[in-house]
Amino acid sequence: MNITETVEGLVLKSGVREGLCLVNAMHITASVFINDNESGLLHDYEVWLEKLAPHEPVAQYHHNRTGEDNADAHMKRQLMGREVVVAITKGKLDFGPWEQIFYGEFDGRRPKRVLVKVIGE
Amino acid sequence: MNITETVEGLVLKSGVREGLCLVNAMHITASVFINDNESGLLHDYEVWLEKLAPHEPVAQYHHNRTGEDNADAHMKRQLMGREVVVAITKGKLDFGPWEQIFYGEFDGRRPKRVLVKVIGE
Amino acid sequence: MNITETVEGLVLKSGVREGLCLVNAMHITASVFINDNESGLLHDYEVWLEKLAPHEPVAQYHHNRTGEDNADAHMKRQLMGREVVVAITKGKLDFGPWEQIFYGEFDGRRPKRVLVKVIGE
Repeated sequence: MNITETVEGLVLKSGVREGLCLVNAMHITASVFINDNESGLLHDYEVWLEKLAPHEPVAQYHHNRTGEDNADAHMKRQLMGREVVVAITKGKLDFGPWEQIFYGEFDGRRPKRVLVKVIGE
Repeated sequence: MNITETVEGLVLKSGVREGLCLVNAMHITASVFINDNESGLLHDYEVWLEKLAPHEPVAQYHHNRTGEDNADAHMKRQLMGREVVVAITKGKLDFGPWEQIFYGEFDGRRPKRVLVKVIGE
Repeated sequence: MNITETVEGLVLKSGVREGLCLVNAMHITASVFINDNESGLLHDYEVWLEKLAPHEPVAQYHHNRTGEDNADAHMKRQLMGREVVVAITKGKLDFGPWEQIFYGEFDGRRPKRVLVKVIGE
């Protein structure tokens, strides 16, 4: 889910001209990451994460003995990262070309919550 | 090693009410990461990291020609991340449910040192 | 590419004594990371990243249907991370032993650009 516009709106609303903007997932099976807004790439990430941290067999993970089956989602989240910190310059997110902020949910059963914290002046 | 309480204590001591807290490992074979305080999951991370960045055979890594045998620990640290940045809101670490801060050492031969930096007002 | 000296110079120039320094790649196929300045290790990272996110076969990635062939570089960048945040203490980057800042380019066809943002007082 591309959340770039939402974050841009919050930075504008904060009135901060020079500072830092932290954006993090509030769930430990989810990530906030910055990459390209290209649907093929987002598909590739899913396939690739499944290869590096497969969901099946569920019983391979001790965590799943708790009754959950989402241990792989905790691994996927570490690969993609919990958070991004973006510079704010002249009141705007200071992006390189193509940088877009995404929320990725790897468990899928939770309402999505993201924290955005803006500091500066 | 769960270091959440130590970090919370330092944030309280700083007196900062709104800001950011950086927590990073001071060793390049170690990580600071945020995830679930569930012993099965922490076990799963160890198994999974060993699969993605195996210690053996030690000779597969050029780095180990220096006389060290910890090249794999440098890879594991990149997968889990060096640092976390956490928002401080109303004087407290602004966590989602289940978020806990961990220090992970993948080499194991060093005294553990973590840097905590709090900024804000 | 070791960019530690450049970042140190910018922190000095900023005059900030206590704060945070964000360093991020401005390209989504590149990383900024902190690790050891040891040539064997940097070689090992390249070999390891190629194993976890292979360039070939190019057709395995949907992203490459856009006419690019760098989908693997987008994966490698996620493994190594987009950014680092480093504490500034008494006017200097507050490093642990051996910490050095690197820019890693996994596509290789772009001029290299890094953003350095310093905040504090």
